[in-house]
Amino acid sequence: MIGLEQIGEIARSTPSKIVLLVIDGLGGLPHPETGRTELESAKTPNLDRLAREGICGMIDPVGPGITPGSAPGHLALFGYDPLKFTVGRGVLEALGIDFDLKQGDVAARGNFCTVDADGIVTDRRAGRISTERCTELCQLLDEVNIKGVEIFVSPVKEHRFVVVLRGQGLFSALSDSDPQREGLPPKAVSPLSAQAAKAANIVNEFITKARATLTDSYPANMVLLRGFAHYPDFPKMNQVFSLKPAAIAPYPMYRGLAKVVGMELLPTGATIEEVIFALIEHYDSYDFFFLHVKEADIAGEDGDFERKVRVIEEVDSALPRLIDLNPDVIIVTADHSTPAILKAHSWHPVPFLLRSKWCRRDAAEEFSERACAAGGLGRFPATQVMPLALANALKLKKFGA
Amino acid sequence: MIGLEQIGEIARSTPSKIVLLVIDGLGGLPHPETGRTELESAKTPNLDRLAREGICGMIDPVGPGITPGSAPGHLALFGYDPLKFTVGRGVLEALGIDFDLKQGDVAARGNFCTVDADGIVTDRRAGRISTERCTELCQLLDEVNIKGVEIFVSPVKEHRFVVVLRGQGLFSALSDSDPQREGLPPKAVSPLSAQAAKAANIVNEFITKARATLTDSYPANMVLLRGFAHYPDFPKMNQVFSLKPAAIAPYPMYRGLAKVVGMELLPTGATIEEVIFALIEHYDSYDFFFLHVKEADIAGEDGDFERKVRVIEEVDSALPRLIDLNPDVIIVTADHSTPAILKAHSWHPVPFLLRSKWCRRDAAEEFSERACAAGGLGRFPATQVMPLALANALKLKKFGA
Repeated sequence: MIGLEQIGEIARSTPSKIVLLVIDGLGGLPHPETGRTELESAKTPNLDRLAREGICGMIDPVGPGITPGSAPGHLALFGYDPLKFTVGRGVLEALGIDFDLKQGDVAARGNFCTVDADGIVTDRRAGRISTERCTELCQLLDEVNIKGVEIFVSPVKEHRFVVVLRGQGLFSALSDSDPQREGLPPKAVSPLSAQAAKAANIVNEFITKARATLTDSYPANMVLLRGFAHYPDFPKMNQVFSLKPAAIAPYPMYRGLAKVVGMELLPTGATIEEVIFALIEHYDSYDFFFLHVKEADIAGEDGDFERKVRVIEEVDSALPRLIDLNPDVIIVTADHSTPAILKAHSWHPVPFLLRSKWCRRDAAEEFSERACAAGGLGRFPATQVMPLALANALKLKKFGA
Repeated sequence: MIGLEQIGEIARSTPSKIVLLVIDGLGGLPHPETGRTELESAKTPNLDRLAREGICGMIDPVGPGITPGSAPGHLALFGYDPLKFTVGRGVLEALGIDFDLKQGDVAARGNFCTVDADGIVTDRRAGRISTERCTELCQLLDEVNIKGVEIFVSPVKEHRFVVVLRGQGLFSALSDSDPQREGLPPKAVSPLSAQAAKAANIVNEFITKARATLTDSYPANMVLLRGFAHYPDFPKMNQVFSLKPAAIAPYPMYRGLAKVVGMELLPTGATIEEVIFALIEHYDSYDFFFLHVKEADIAGEDGDFERKVRVIEEVDSALPRLIDLNPDVIIVTADHSTPAILKAHSWHPVPFLLRSKWCRRDAAEEFSERACAAGGLGRFPATQVMPLALANALKLKKFGA
């Protein structure tokens, strides 16, 4: 299948518009009583209309049997092979709090923890201190100075925070300081490549100074760091696809993933109505829009089948104003399945619909897992969604003579 | 998926016969009034019979969303990954006029053009001179002598021609001389690799001599060259698949592509009846036959829905004599879709049918895009057609112990 380099050679800029609506965690499993999935239980006249006017299929974000995290799930939809284009834990944590990462930054996930007088970890989460307390302690650590590098410490939630190093020649091939269980001391951070020696020294100096700073902050009197990662230098969608892409995503993590591939981030409120309002407002300025709805995934993770059904129905109710814009290509799909009865992301392939003038309509009468499994597009890798979207928007030239 | 090297290890020669019928551009899109594609509109009792007796599916020549040119579309059907096995513009032009290219030849596409007294291009197509005039001028240029190399200049149509260089140590990594717009002089041809320096010198000398030769041939008083390419040295089907393959293709381009992969070229008339007659005549001498029907693609490119329907019906009417041969494997498919309403090649997956004694029949009742999308083979890459054909002809041994 075609890769990013080759698609760059045949992509062309045109005025046609593509809207990619991602209903996070949309795919589900049947309710034991009704035999219908969340999507099949929801009343979705507008999604069903799009399915009737379009073509359906099933996509695999990473591959059969593989449960994707948020990053691989979205990168695949954006056309980036998630096995080649990886985003490290620390960077994802930083994106999740809207930290404005720059090229070359190294980020890590941090925990406040408790150590005893001998420096042995007695609680890896420092009794799950409050987010307020975490914020105060991060402000203290943010003041730590180390020569030749800027250090940022930002709270996430409870005992969790993010550390970002900014400076010349920093490499992220670093071992964790987190021993992963209590009864051991924090580990010294080691470089996993020769280039990373400088960063290792800086991180170890930071940990030493953090411990000194936190002496009187029991139970949060030490830090554990893990998941060191550099901000990735991915090719950008405007170069790869000749698009002018924008993201309308209320949640920071998804804005962050959109930024990594070069989308403009548009301001939006939290609801689907506000997301679609932002689309209408900026419709003339871009030719590709990534719209993200998080709540279906949250309901799925909470195991709340009925709430997930309601979220899907709310999205459906808001769709007419999107459909009225008459984009050349409308795609509705997800980054992965999150079946409420599993209370977690899952490996199940993801329902997919595409409507365009040229889509070769199939027999689907509704948007559902069943209709998609029998859909005219069959089952295909999510990395091929972008070529398909571009093709249907007539944005791809012929490959080869 | 299995590649050419691996299939070579399990392919074996047997007396069983495979017929691959390519109806160029067969796949379509629904007519706005009837909702039926060209194939679905055509009366095709014989294709429908094959579909009922066989198994259907949808193939992607290059990948979802990718519109293939003729070369990638056919190479994929022949089992050659079109992303790895590429044929350059100049070579395709030469194949398209039945020029008998040899290993090591370098070919380019040429235009006659008009330059003014300062050598500035004033018309990139020399007023689209007649094919007769083009032929006369090509005969003049064919006389140009350059030491150490043979040069062939052959007319294509109107202002278009082909140049072929034959000699030792010629490489095709060369820039175009065509400036791609008027108001500029032709560009000197530069080597794009160190190895190509010799060829660049020869081409530039040819261009200088061509200009001198054409001084009095206004408006066709200069040449522009582009798309330099070497005749590719692909592995041949007899080695790769242990087949004795033959092509029955009325159009030069497709004979050329068949020659590139090592098929014998059989003489044939232009009609489907003549193609099938050639098949009958040579049936005992080969075990793999590639039959090509061009007219469906031409009708599609012309936007002539009804004519494309008629071409499909004509092919269908001629099929009984092919079916009567009772080949072990019959495949009917295409190199790409050419929907009449798009008037161009398209990215839509291509209907595919295979009949053999061992095909595991599906529920398809007719040969149509709809039946193929629901077919038992599902959707799969066109590069896997050859392994499937060989398997159904019992020409593949077990893979691994």
